Amino acid sequence: MSKLSENDSIRHTVELHKASVDARLRKMTVGKKPSTVYDPLVYAITAGGKRLRAILVLLACESVGGKTTTALDAACAIELLHNFTLIHDDIMDKSDLRRGIPTVHKKWNVDEAILSGDQMAASAYEMLLKTKSPRLPEIMRIFTGAFVDVCEGQGYDIEYEQRNDLGVKDYRFMIRKKTAKMISAAGEIGAFIGGGSKEEVKALRLYGAYLGIAFQLKDDILDIDGNQETFGKLIGRDIIEGKRTYLLLMANERAKGKDRTIIRAVMRHEIHDNDCIKRVRDIYEAEGVLADARKEMERTTRKAQAQLSKLPRNRARAALLWLSDKLLERQT
Amino acid sequence: MSKLSENDSIRHTVELHKASVDARLRKMTVGKKPSTVYDPLVYAITAGGKRLRAILVLLACESVGGKTTTALDAACAIELLHNFTLIHDDIMDKSDLRRGIPTVHKKWNVDEAILSGDQMAASAYEMLLKTKSPRLPEIMRIFTGAFVDVCEGQGYDIEYEQRNDLGVKDYRFMIRKKTAKMISAAGEIGAFIGGGSKEEVKALRLYGAYLGIAFQLKDDILDIDGNQETFGKLIGRDIIEGKRTYLLLMANERAKGKDRTIIRAVMRHEIHDNDCIKRVRDIYEAEGVLADARKEMERTTRKAQAQLSKLPRNRARAALLWLSDKLLERQT
Repeated sequence: MSKLSENDSIRHTVELHKASVDARLRKMTVGKKPSTVYDPLVYAITAGGKRLRAILVLLACESVGGKTTTALDAACAIELLHNFTLIHDDIMDKSDLRRGIPTVHKKWNVDEAILSGDQMAASAYEMLLKTKSPRLPEIMRIFTGAFVDVCEGQGYDIEYEQRNDLGVKDYRFMIRKKTAKMISAAGEIGAFIGGGSKEEVKALRLYGAYLGIAFQLKDDILDIDGNQETFGKLIGRDIIEGKRTYLLLMANERAKGKDRTIIRAVMRHEIHDNDCIKRVRDIYEAEGVLADARKEMERTTRKAQAQLSKLPRNRARAALLWLSDKLLERQT
Repeated sequence: MSKLSENDSIRHTVELHKASVDARLRKMTVGKKPSTVYDPLVYAITAGGKRLRAILVLLACESVGGKTTTALDAACAIELLHNFTLIHDDIMDKSDLRRGIPTVHKKWNVDEAILSGDQMAASAYEMLLKTKSPRLPEIMRIFTGAFVDVCEGQGYDIEYEQRNDLGVKDYRFMIRKKTAKMISAAGEIGAFIGGGSKEEVKALRLYGAYLGIAFQLKDDILDIDGNQETFGKLIGRDIIEGKRTYLLLMANERAKGKDRTIIRAVMRHEIHDNDCIKRVRDIYEAEGVLADARKEMERTTRKAQAQLSKLPRNRARAALLWLSDKLLERQT
């Protein structure tokens, strides 16, 4: 098969995986009551999204020789856990839109968003426990580790909002908990369900961990580097909000004099007009921040991909490689 | 041993169980970071409380021949799960005080209360997973069933706030999910960890389920019947808030004419002055609502106690009997 048609075939497989996750999630909530909790839950879970974590569970399972059908419940469980954090984070971040539609607390209210988020976390465990695996206790531990870490990560994110003495080391620490851990757990859980060896489980855990960091770096870069039309979000929003991105913290480490004053002012939320986006972008250029962030992202993606060499050579492994390239290239 | 000294001895045992739960919960959070999530969590979990659910896990385990130390982590886990719901419910109910001190969202803010509540749910699973038992998957299923039901129960509670066509049947349905299921899960999980037989597990599950309903009935009765000084809460608060208690829904079924109009107005939150407390209390008296609620509570407690006859005759069983009597008599 030519490279192009092989890629088409992989893309098709990944799309099928996504479709089976979507179908399972829709089926899960049919006939569930009360509507006070399940209407917002269904709204949030069917609003779209890449289903990266769920697809990773399925591909990880397949890559070590397991059947994806055995991992489908766990795949949906991790997607539910992820979406639970989005509902609650959107309240805390005062975000009005997610995936182009009003967030749950905007469409309903904060109380409904709290409760339907809680219900989604409960449903996540309910779904995970449908998994038939002799390694269920270990799977539960990994899943719970991701739950603990994503909360702690959000806690650090809130704490960091008040701190200006931060560098990229702090960023990595926070992102490992807030973003990377759950993606890493997806790889690990898929490997466990597929019956992977100790080495394979470790490889898929590390693949997920590196991929998660690269994913977040890409997110941070897109904020300043994205195409306004394809991005779908406001370019420079992170800067206006003084969000502790890799870019801002790297600039915070490097900038001197007047530039440093500007970066600190952005971090202190003292300047947040549209004008400051250009000024910060200029500092990023001057300090080589954007170029270095791209390099870091590529390096981290390569680290993720290197882990795949420890897996048997098969279609699922090729799909995991394809997936990591896609995340690097994405424009949204 | 005389009845009195036997009761003293049982009380002492229960107090020791409570102390070991308190100590374990305090130890659990030592050195945990970030403080943005763990400070509110520690504040909420060390603010007191009866530890009914945790004590029940320990006594249930002991009653079927298990060692309480093996059930301590699970006991704390269910206490954490319960307290997580309290933090989030207090936001939704706009409660300023809990156990005599400001609620988490009052002392910090809503965002911190959402996040530290989430963290508490995560910590609950983390704690539960420390339990060493070959029946861990079943224990996880029961625990998750309680998590699902408590959210659904809160959803019904919110839905019921907008409905006036409710009776005691609806009340029972809601309370089974919102209150009784977790107490029932406490009994069941303790029995599982203690290695109880199928019949013993069932007996302790039902004991908890009946106890949970009786517990809620007592709560509802105390609102109108409590002593203002010992109760520690405002007498008649449920009425002022138009809360769908057993009493109000029974009155809603029974009252006719002008009385019915008053009850409906209370349910529609149209009257909520202090004066309406007396008027509703008079309706309760006239319709025999209070007397019947007390009878129902006693009947339900007896049903719980009847389940204990299926357990071996031992000190823990005696303590479970004592505990159910105490809950019936309590003034707070």
